[in-house]
Amino acid sequence: MPRQITAFSNPLIKRMRGLREKRHRREEGLFLAEGLRILTEARETGRLPAWLFFSKASAGHPLVTSLIAAVETAGGEAIETVPDILSKLSGKDNPQAVVGVFEEFETSLDALDRSSAGIWLVAERLRDPGNLGTILRTGDAVGAGGLILIGECVDPFSVEAVRASMGALFTVPIVRASWDAFLVWLRGGPGQLVGLSLDTDNDYRAAHYDAPTFLLTGNEAQGMPADYAAACDLLVKLPMLGKADSLNAAVATAVMAYEVLAQQRC
Amino acid sequence: MPRQITAFSNPLIKRMRGLREKRHRREEGLFLAEGLRILTEARETGRLPAWLFFSKASAGHPLVTSLIAAVETAGGEAIETVPDILSKLSGKDNPQAVVGVFEEFETSLDALDRSSAGIWLVAERLRDPGNLGTILRTGDAVGAGGLILIGECVDPFSVEAVRASMGALFTVPIVRASWDAFLVWLRGGPGQLVGLSLDTDNDYRAAHYDAPTFLLTGNEAQGMPADYAAACDLLVKLPMLGKADSLNAAVATAVMAYEVLAQQRC
Repeated sequence: MPRQITAFSNPLIKRMRGLREKRHRREEGLFLAEGLRILTEARETGRLPAWLFFSKASAGHPLVTSLIAAVETAGGEAIETVPDILSKLSGKDNPQAVVGVFEEFETSLDALDRSSAGIWLVAERLRDPGNLGTILRTGDAVGAGGLILIGECVDPFSVEAVRASMGALFTVPIVRASWDAFLVWLRGGPGQLVGLSLDTDNDYRAAHYDAPTFLLTGNEAQGMPADYAAACDLLVKLPMLGKADSLNAAVATAVMAYEVLAQQRC
Repeated sequence: MPRQITAFSNPLIKRMRGLREKRHRREEGLFLAEGLRILTEARETGRLPAWLFFSKASAGHPLVTSLIAAVETAGGEAIETVPDILSKLSGKDNPQAVVGVFEEFETSLDALDRSSAGIWLVAERLRDPGNLGTILRTGDAVGAGGLILIGECVDPFSVEAVRASMGALFTVPIVRASWDAFLVWLRGGPGQLVGLSLDTDNDYRAAHYDAPTFLLTGNEAQGMPADYAAACDLLVKLPMLGKADSLNAAVATAVMAYEVLAQQRC
């Protein structure tokens, strides 16, 4: 039987709210994910929250009832609370019906099986959590083997990144690695490293993408460093017909990923 | 010679800060855009801010000097201020060197020349300002003729949308219209209305996109209403290989727009 918490001053609520900050996530090894859709997706991948907060109004929803039972069976705790507290946890004015607190997870380069997918996403110094989450969501859609984060990237477990991923945080493996470690791993097996660049004449549609292709996306403001570009097997460019000379990083990654997918489907 | 304002209590600063709210933008017919890159792009399209706020530290930058001169020549006012006030205006902790206050502008369906571009973007009930700005930025890159906003969309002149557009707000014509008015206009000339949908077997790569193609993107959470889909000349779907069944709206729009561009370039 779930216990109830209705006071903002409750120590557990204070602790969970702290997970909105990266420092507390690191200390606790926990992160927040909100919404029935995302939590159901997480459950389907075998991940249940250690704590599940839900509103009384949502308790009758079959998916919520089922989620509560699953969390309790797995030894987690389901807690009935009020919309204002859900709002505080998620940081949104109109809170979702459920907020889950999950243990952080990630994988390592050595645990990746590069033969398992034709497309892999690699991003370096990604700064925007919305872009990171959106790239994960695209990765899920194109069946990417994983997202490899190089250098100082924004935290994939931030509330904003988890929200933008729409559940793909749970379905797309994430690895954090240094550029050097990534290159050593990459060159230890088959794989083509493809970078998006403005300094090339290779049109992205004219190039050929063998499986596995590793798509490298550079920092939003600066693109990738020259030595990263030099390490790529292939640099390609997207046509830019307008007055600006760049696309949003998540958009550019998606256009590339769908081109690779289209070629590999044939 | 630019005047200086260093006090938060200055009435002009208070008034300009108010433009972060939609209500005040509507009353004043003004909006905020920040950053040297965006303001320079605006200038190249013939738009100068009515007020230009700059920091003393940036005053020596040749592009800032040139912008100040252009604003003053055009009858606008350049105002030297402090980083804290630029921060308040832009809502960012690390403010850009310049913030401009522009008069709002938009165009009408009747002013659009559909023969001027092969791709047109149409979005209905778009809710996220970042998505709207990102779609504008993609529109600039693919040479779209304009962005037509149907129904209750987020305000394209919000600070977040302007920022995400990276200047494309100034280069891509924007029209706001009702669905009915749009359909009447659309059917008054050549043009194929293409909608992204999950309820079709038409793969987006197998379809053919004649110029002008109007790409319709539905609401982020709900997609487009059934009668909108029924009014499309063609519904297409993107492959979804993952556990989720959707892409970010700006990403889906971009993948489609680049496919149309690739076909029309041939």
